[in-house]
Amino acid sequence: MESNMIFVPIAMAVIGLIFMMIKMAWVKKQAPGNDKMQGISKAIKEGALAFLGAEYRLLLIFVVIAAVALGIISMMVDTTHWIIIVAFIVGAFASALAGNIGMRIATEANARTAEAAKTSLPQALKVSFGGGTVMGLGVASLAVLGLSLFFFVFVKMFVDGGSSFYNDMTMALEALAGFSLGAESIALFARVGGGIYTKAADVGADLVGKVEAGIPEDDPRNPATIADNVGDNVGDVAGMGADLFGSYVATVLAAMVLGNYLIKDISLFTNAPFTDSFNNMGPILLPIVIAGVGILASILGTFLVKISNNDAKEPQVQKALDMGNWVAIVITLIASWFLIDMMLPETMNMKFFGEGYKAIPSINVFWSACIGLAVGALISMVTAFYTSLGKKPVLDIVKNSSTGAATNIIAGLAVGMKSTFLSVVLFAAAIYGSYELAGFYGVALAASAMMATTAMQLAIDAFGPIADNAGGVAEMSELEPHVRERTDILDSVGNTTAAVGKGFAIASAALTALALFAAYVTFTGIDGINIFRADVLAMLFVGGMIPVIFSALAMQSVGKAAMEMVQEVRRQFREIPGIMEGTGTPEYAKCVDISTKAALKEMILPGLITIITPIIIGLVFGAEPLGGYMAGVCVSGVMWAIFQNNAGGAWDNAKKSFEAGVEINGEMTYKGSDAHKAAVTGDTVGDPFKDTSGPSMNILIKLTCLVGLVIAPILGGHDIEEGMAMETTTTAKSPDDVYKKVLIDMEVVSDDIAKAVVTTTSVVNGEAVVEEKVISGTKAEVKARVEEIKTGASQVKENVNDLTIEEEVIKE
Amino acid sequence: MESNMIFVPIAMAVIGLIFMMIKMAWVKKQAPGNDKMQGISKAIKEGALAFLGAEYRLLLIFVVIAAVALGIISMMVDTTHWIIIVAFIVGAFASALAGNIGMRIATEANARTAEAAKTSLPQALKVSFGGGTVMGLGVASLAVLGLSLFFFVFVKMFVDGGSSFYNDMTMALEALAGFSLGAESIALFARVGGGIYTKAADVGADLVGKVEAGIPEDDPRNPATIADNVGDNVGDVAGMGADLFGSYVATVLAAMVLGNYLIKDISLFTNAPFTDSFNNMGPILLPIVIAGVGILASILGTFLVKISNNDAKEPQVQKALDMGNWVAIVITLIASWFLIDMMLPETMNMKFFGEGYKAIPSINVFWSACIGLAVGALISMVTAFYTSLGKKPVLDIVKNSSTGAATNIIAGLAVGMKSTFLSVVLFAAAIYGSYELAGFYGVALAASAMMATTAMQLAIDAFGPIADNAGGVAEMSELEPHVRERTDILDSVGNTTAAVGKGFAIASAALTALALFAAYVTFTGIDGINIFRADVLAMLFVGGMIPVIFSALAMQSVGKAAMEMVQEVRRQFREIPGIMEGTGTPEYAKCVDISTKAALKEMILPGLITIITPIIIGLVFGAEPLGGYMAGVCVSGVMWAIFQNNAGGAWDNAKKSFEAGVEINGEMTYKGSDAHKAAVTGDTVGDPFKDTSGPSMNILIKLTCLVGLVIAPILGGHDIEEGMAMETTTTAKSPDDVYKKVLIDMEVVSDDIAKAVVTTTSVVNGEAVVEEKVISGTKAEVKARVEEIKTGASQVKENVNDLTIEEEVIKE
Repeated sequence: MESNMIFVPIAMAVIGLIFMMIKMAWVKKQAPGNDKMQGISKAIKEGALAFLGAEYRLLLIFVVIAAVALGIISMMVDTTHWIIIVAFIVGAFASALAGNIGMRIATEANARTAEAAKTSLPQALKVSFGGGTVMGLGVASLAVLGLSLFFFVFVKMFVDGGSSFYNDMTMALEALAGFSLGAESIALFARVGGGIYTKAADVGADLVGKVEAGIPEDDPRNPATIADNVGDNVGDVAGMGADLFGSYVATVLAAMVLGNYLIKDISLFTNAPFTDSFNNMGPILLPIVIAGVGILASILGTFLVKISNNDAKEPQVQKALDMGNWVAIVITLIASWFLIDMMLPETMNMKFFGEGYKAIPSINVFWSACIGLAVGALISMVTAFYTSLGKKPVLDIVKNSSTGAATNIIAGLAVGMKSTFLSVVLFAAAIYGSYELAGFYGVALAASAMMATTAMQLAIDAFGPIADNAGGVAEMSELEPHVRERTDILDSVGNTTAAVGKGFAIASAALTALALFAAYVTFTGIDGINIFRADVLAMLFVGGMIPVIFSALAMQSVGKAAMEMVQEVRRQFREIPGIMEGTGTPEYAKCVDISTKAALKEMILPGLITIITPIIIGLVFGAEPLGGYMAGVCVSGVMWAIFQNNAGGAWDNAKKSFEAGVEINGEMTYKGSDAHKAAVTGDTVGDPFKDTSGPSMNILIKLTCLVGLVIAPILGGHDIEEGMAMETTTTAKSPDDVYKKVLIDMEVVSDDIAKAVVTTTSVVNGEAVVEEKVISGTKAEVKARVEEIKTGASQVKENVNDLTIEEEVIKE
Repeated sequence: MESNMIFVPIAMAVIGLIFMMIKMAWVKKQAPGNDKMQGISKAIKEGALAFLGAEYRLLLIFVVIAAVALGIISMMVDTTHWIIIVAFIVGAFASALAGNIGMRIATEANARTAEAAKTSLPQALKVSFGGGTVMGLGVASLAVLGLSLFFFVFVKMFVDGGSSFYNDMTMALEALAGFSLGAESIALFARVGGGIYTKAADVGADLVGKVEAGIPEDDPRNPATIADNVGDNVGDVAGMGADLFGSYVATVLAAMVLGNYLIKDISLFTNAPFTDSFNNMGPILLPIVIAGVGILASILGTFLVKISNNDAKEPQVQKALDMGNWVAIVITLIASWFLIDMMLPETMNMKFFGEGYKAIPSINVFWSACIGLAVGALISMVTAFYTSLGKKPVLDIVKNSSTGAATNIIAGLAVGMKSTFLSVVLFAAAIYGSYELAGFYGVALAASAMMATTAMQLAIDAFGPIADNAGGVAEMSELEPHVRERTDILDSVGNTTAAVGKGFAIASAALTALALFAAYVTFTGIDGINIFRADVLAMLFVGGMIPVIFSALAMQSVGKAAMEMVQEVRRQFREIPGIMEGTGTPEYAKCVDISTKAALKEMILPGLITIITPIIIGLVFGAEPLGGYMAGVCVSGVMWAIFQNNAGGAWDNAKKSFEAGVEINGEMTYKGSDAHKAAVTGDTVGDPFKDTSGPSMNILIKLTCLVGLVIAPILGGHDIEEGMAMETTTTAKSPDDVYKKVLIDMEVVSDDIAKAVVTTTSVVNGEAVVEEKVISGTKAEVKARVEEIKTGASQVKENVNDLTIEEEVIKE
């Protein structure tokens, strides 16, 4: 009963890539504008390419070191195959490629959008959204293609169709985790590096150009203006591309791992191997097939994003984007309903921690997916409320600007903090609801549903920076004002969609992290994560600290680089004659250089902290404390992500409110007022919040869990055969009659399943207490539990004087 | 073998109170200064008393409602006696009294300190430190007296010396938890209310007076100046007094609860009742006896705080305080060594979660206490490093001030965030170390050791605001400059000691919260807190959000009230003729009124959120999710406390750096420069951080755990006798042959201890799996576990169609 279901996502990914290439060719065919525009566009492109080149060269060192480390792991642990190195390298490469595709098309599309905006707004939308589509489809298709091809190969390599399906599949998925790890590590560096680059340039350009010299944004007289536009591309485009590539892969991977675990549950419950008409791996294939369908749905959705009226304003553009987005989502949901019905058993016996088995109808998985989407949409609405122009939170900040920068900052911080309330309550409801419906598999599918239309989401997200850049090109090439007005409409819509996208991103990242967390627990075979153990609790605190220190490092890097930039721009204004009159040419390259160097230097430490800390904790303290650490990173990371993103967004729009004029205490207040200056200060503080440290939190929490997942085999020990069938006693005896004897009779029931009978006799003051316990489950689980019991027994040793420990192997 | 050990702490508390009264009489005997000074001092005192009066009237409503709620709990739950209401009310009253004593002496001592400073710095130190001593001894003695008297009464009431010692003592300690709950709730309101009051006045006074009008601090022309000085007393003095009173009680209580648990462990291990020569309750009495000794040691320490040189500078004053402090600590430690040796069994068999019993020598408890002190001191050093003048973090902020307020803010936020790293690592080490040494009892004793010299710590903390106020009185009474110079020396030292005190406060609060958390787990009888359960995990996130939203509300309140204050001060400057020339009198009362109203109105919501949320979560989701919530509050609360306190402290000192002048990029920069203005903005943002929301975090996390502890009996169910000795089967059966049968044979072994044999037969497709499990422990534990198993068994029902559930009681 050989099924070809795995070829469905492969085919969809290929379709996505083909469509991407057609779209790319179309964009490149558009008129690129006059020489000046082409020149600027080229300068931006070259700056961005130069930065990415330098970044990738540096990351190559990291990839080599990490590959060696993975090689060592694969030698140490039987269940980790060396092929994980290949997966890791390809993942890292694919992530870089995804960012690169996006960056290239964005720098092609910017001048073309400006050129199109000369004559037509609909055409400008078409070009900029076309650029976004290329990026969205490139990222999503590469992710699905990579995952499904590797999965296909690994299943062929490891899963022989024998009775040890669960363990074989675990090996395959562990290798696949390497792909995800590669993608996510590069994403972290790209996000942090790009974020530092773009904000150093932006803050530097604004503080001197706008505030001190009083020249407008994107003015060619500003030496940091090219760096600023390059930053938009390496941060908002390439960084985001790598980010979403990593997210997408991690989400699907987590769902696949939990699908495998579900198969084990079902087969343990029925005491028989799991079978279905999808090579007995329907629950594992489902997430990736849904992802494939999401690509197709996104392509269909992109056709709906168009406007016809040349005098359209923001609402019409917004409506066009919403239409495309929701159609893509609805198509994916409908398809998911059929796929879930087809690919999952009608009723599944899932094991709920501490509650035993429950029979779950497969439709529950669909409802979990719906919860994911609903909560994602609601969190986006919360985000929009706290960050939108004209809403109470932003108006509060505006009002507080009238009493100076200090009250503006206090108000902005308070808005960011307050926005955590509803977001976290909704998020907790999503965990609770999707888990109640379908366990951690439900949680993973809820995250997958949010991520399924990544191609569309990213198209919408990426068109904003393209329009922003088009505006910059228009400004720098001194095109007519109506061009800038048109690109500004697109840019403004882009800002809103970016905020909404962030709501989805953080919700899906957090759910993915939980799914990875669950996958980690199943991989290590531990008995849950109990925070009533001091080591677990201590690591929960350490984990909670990591997002804070990470944010601190990112912010500090921006602060340092921005200060350098400010001084350089001030110097150029001072030393280059005729610069303000437009007769002297600023030294753009020096500013690009400052941003580049700062970004490369400063991205290393936060990146390494993220990757190395969980490894150290896992190796030193073991699997359960590492679980506590992961939970701490997730809880704190979600809080700091919401806080920073929303505070930053709110400050930004509070500042923007002054552009149209805003009423404070009955007086209309405009740009250039003291209140506006206070709002500019708030926005500058918010910049690294919302574009550097805030968005990095998503990757931080997922990467932490992924690292845990990859090193799980070292901690939990899947070493399947060694010492499984034996009977041992461990006796700890002291002269004053305190002793404990543990007799363990362990046997292998089938290829997958083992059983152990543990008899513990504690003799205290001559009285014996006997406890007998039967443990059954997968070999790894039983093994881990038995090891724990043996360790517990021999630990009496350290505390009673002159204790003798005997371990006797009765039979092997 | 009747022991009178309980009278030791009672006696020490009485000695403390007597010494306090002597000291108070001495302070009042000092020359009160000229009429103007007395008038100002009186205005401050009356303003403060008026605020406290209004606050207490409002809190009376809360106390009545909470008392009714406790009454309902005591009717619902057998093990909660109505006497808890009395304990709660007395606790609330004592906390208010502690704050009141402090406030009264502080407002007496301020003018007297200024008067003394006319002639002699040593005498000014003596008076101001005398005032601090009164407050410190008042708070500590009241706490120890209240705790030990109630404990004495409750032991008489509940503990009859029979074999059910553990349960009886649990009832006594639960009633005692009411005392702590009363104290800590009032502390929360006092801290938040006082914090809002003082910062609204401070920010308002600074923004208009210092920045806009350019008049110095404490200038009598500033309408907000009296409100500002009142604020120092209600916030920094009364608020802090209530805070430390609550902390102290909670810490000792948590250690006593864990002492009781330790006794149970020992008696379960030996299968015999625990006996010692302290009425069989040595481990419970130990923490309170150490607290009593701490009072005596503090009294001795206060004698060493003196200087002889009239030309002494900060270092000499600092040295005198350090000397007194360390002598008190060392005396307490030495006494603890003897007390631990005397009052604890030489070797104790402690149960470590998941690891079984370990034999712990009593000296380990001493080492835990040492770890507590060492880590407390180290965290204080970290705090000092991140917030002190002349150290790198503050210099970084100073440097970033040169490029404007935005970079100053970014740098300050980064410093606050970065300071979490070492603090949390140290704190995690303290948890890990003290737990490894002596379990959660060790953790509780580590916290107790930090808090033991509260009297001395508070004397040092409280003398700062007194000196600060003395400076204000000197300024407003237009005394000669050398008076202000002398009080400034004291004030400056006070700022340093305050920062160090905060390090201790947060470390001890966090350890106390953990001890309370452990006490909660033992009270509910649950099996640990497993975050691999979705409901627990969801509540971990919700808990993590609470400190953030709490801080947001506090900051927003300060922002709102400060804005009102700014407008009022601006109005007075505009409308009152001759105010700037000193011929018109400002309307001080209007500013006092604004602060009072804002504080009273705004303290309610955060207070209620803190108290009500855990109750709702406990009742709706149960004991384990509430545990997850508590952990979330602790982890996030510690992070936000450190972040806010240190960022605020660093901003403050960055601003102060400009007073003496500071070198930025090779140029000396002073007060009045643009960089200084940027630093003032940072300081204003930091004000609510370090004086409103930051210090409230300590209380928030402890109060959350206390609320959990008080409602624990409803959740875990101590109903000791009902249905303990019986044998039941629960069978869940479906037509398609999936069924599960659980046979439970439960019996009572002794008054305290029960045992249950659980045999689970799961039949699936005709094949049966049999598991047998023996559970033994206290009745509550066994009962809770059995209920869990029964629930798990009957839950098959919801998931298999047409399932029949039978519950059969075989014998009862």
